[in-house]
Amino acid sequence: MPTTHRPVLALHGGCGTPAESELSPADWREVHEHLAQALRRGWAAMARAGGGALDGVEAAVVALEDSPHFNAGFGAALCEDGTHELDASIMDGRTRAAGAVSAVRHLRNPVRAARAVMERSGCVLLTGAAADAFGRAQGLDCVENHHFTTPRRVAALKKLRAVQAVQAAQAADAVPASPFAAAPGRPGPHPGITEADRHGTVGAVALDAAGHLAAATSTGGFNNKPVGRVGDSPVIGAGTYATDGLAAVSCTGQGEVFIRHVVAHDLVAQMRYAGRSLQEASRVMLDETLAPHRVGAGWVALDALGRVVAVFNTLGMARGWVDAAGQVWVGTHRAMLPMGPV
Amino acid sequence: MPTTHRPVLALHGGCGTPAESELSPADWREVHEHLAQALRRGWAAMARAGGGALDGVEAAVVALEDSPHFNAGFGAALCEDGTHELDASIMDGRTRAAGAVSAVRHLRNPVRAARAVMERSGCVLLTGAAADAFGRAQGLDCVENHHFTTPRRVAALKKLRAVQAVQAAQAADAVPASPFAAAPGRPGPHPGITEADRHGTVGAVALDAAGHLAAATSTGGFNNKPVGRVGDSPVIGAGTYATDGLAAVSCTGQGEVFIRHVVAHDLVAQMRYAGRSLQEASRVMLDETLAPHRVGAGWVALDALGRVVAVFNTLGMARGWVDAAGQVWVGTHRAMLPMGPV
Repeated sequence: MPTTHRPVLALHGGCGTPAESELSPADWREVHEHLAQALRRGWAAMARAGGGALDGVEAAVVALEDSPHFNAGFGAALCEDGTHELDASIMDGRTRAAGAVSAVRHLRNPVRAARAVMERSGCVLLTGAAADAFGRAQGLDCVENHHFTTPRRVAALKKLRAVQAVQAAQAADAVPASPFAAAPGRPGPHPGITEADRHGTVGAVALDAAGHLAAATSTGGFNNKPVGRVGDSPVIGAGTYATDGLAAVSCTGQGEVFIRHVVAHDLVAQMRYAGRSLQEASRVMLDETLAPHRVGAGWVALDALGRVVAVFNTLGMARGWVDAAGQVWVGTHRAMLPMGPV
Repeated sequence: MPTTHRPVLALHGGCGTPAESELSPADWREVHEHLAQALRRGWAAMARAGGGALDGVEAAVVALEDSPHFNAGFGAALCEDGTHELDASIMDGRTRAAGAVSAVRHLRNPVRAARAVMERSGCVLLTGAAADAFGRAQGLDCVENHHFTTPRRVAALKKLRAVQAVQAAQAADAVPASPFAAAPGRPGPHPGITEADRHGTVGAVALDAAGHLAAATSTGGFNNKPVGRVGDSPVIGAGTYATDGLAAVSCTGQGEVFIRHVVAHDLVAQMRYAGRSLQEASRVMLDETLAPHRVGAGWVALDALGRVVAVFNTLGMARGWVDAAGQVWVGTHRAMLPMGPV
């Protein structure tokens, strides 16, 4: 088979990036290194004999799940009860096969479970303890729930609770104390908290040498989320979509709004039915459809020619890609930094 | 406010309708009556002071959930462990607000829980025991899980297991004994079983006098489904979508394929971006996109002018609507029967 496409791999580490002043230079350096490592792991998986886009996005997301700097796997956000529930999905652009898990608690790498669901369950989406049991039966790494906990998330949860307690005291009647009692029409259950405190998701998109696209997304949701809340990451069409000839998309941001607008699939539909470029479809989605909601939003996406789109409306979005010359680039705010050859 | 639209309500009781010979005339009569009752309940809710499309679809789906003839609520399919897990969603075309629950076990009317999630949780999707707990906290009717069990579903599960045991014995190596071990690329975990044995979903779509659209869907999944499996019904975009000015859609059929093609949202996207009519978008989806998958599929949908589309590729689909003259029509196979004025 002749190589017809120059492979491309791009990823994100969520649009809830803190302000540059909030982390030390050493921490930022580690964030950049982890992004670059994830790109290299994904690239290696894609380049391996028999490897392809699906392997690339899986390996890249596994690396991000294993890094404490991103809200997925190790380092995931904490639910309101102090535990973790993780969501992930993966999609193969060749066949539009897809797999996802929601609210898993014991699978070290939820994206691997999503792929196992896709390939070996006959289902697309498995939820809760049954999804954990499926992953275990498939031989995936299992861990205690506290494996995912990091001091940074514990501190963030504490801070959030303090803010909420103040809000509740200030307006006992007007502001709901529990997210379960939030008023209709609110953008989300935790008004007044910065994106960095709340959101975060990781994801990757790839185009392989055979021209196939794939996408994967993984998340711990948001800090202090209600147990049982499922965002857009495991929802095929909302947080993840891939279809050969059009695009692969992985989203980050306020999941509820992404579900309502079926963001990843809508980008593909704009390309397919309105003939828009991925760039133009992304502009319409971010500036017209999502703007009125005033929520954090971003995505990385690739079109069928391997052109990378990485957009966000927040302070920053951790992201990176391997360019056509084989150079690794990563960034968290405006600038992209070269990290050497892949 | 002047009444600018003639209200319309349409519903379905799933595309897994058995052959006409499989039920007695008395049973078919009851199916027709329950469809007509659901239309009348939905209509009354929509006509009530302050009522609208959202109330109409919720009340119609509640009635279908309470009927033993449809695979949702009372009379829902059984999981492989003999219990029930229920999924439902609802969407408000005015704002694209949406709510859904997956894998609930104790809420008598999952569609009511979906609406409560939409209006009072700050979330869009809640899963599992936490969704049950949320519904209970919201004062919704709770029941023991066996409340949903009917002799018909128990018999169907027994029959399915017998078929699977034979299949497993016939090809111990080639055919997986458990759906969790199904081979990749299979259309679903239970080859060789008729649609009527497997699927079933209920749903409703409405256009109210103010011109607002809404859609709702509820299901027990399919008989012998793995615990934790979530289909398209609670997935906004896949099984349910509604947006004013375009369409409201509620789907039924093999959920995995509906998730992969984001069917409900794709119909809306074809209208929005390709300028197709709902009728034409439905034809493209059923005959071109879904046909190669060879799975049971159907939906009821309404466009912004209240034109009803009810399509299916199976033997039959329980369905009904109130026409412009205020007549109730119901059907299960080809013919539609008049059931008197609404």
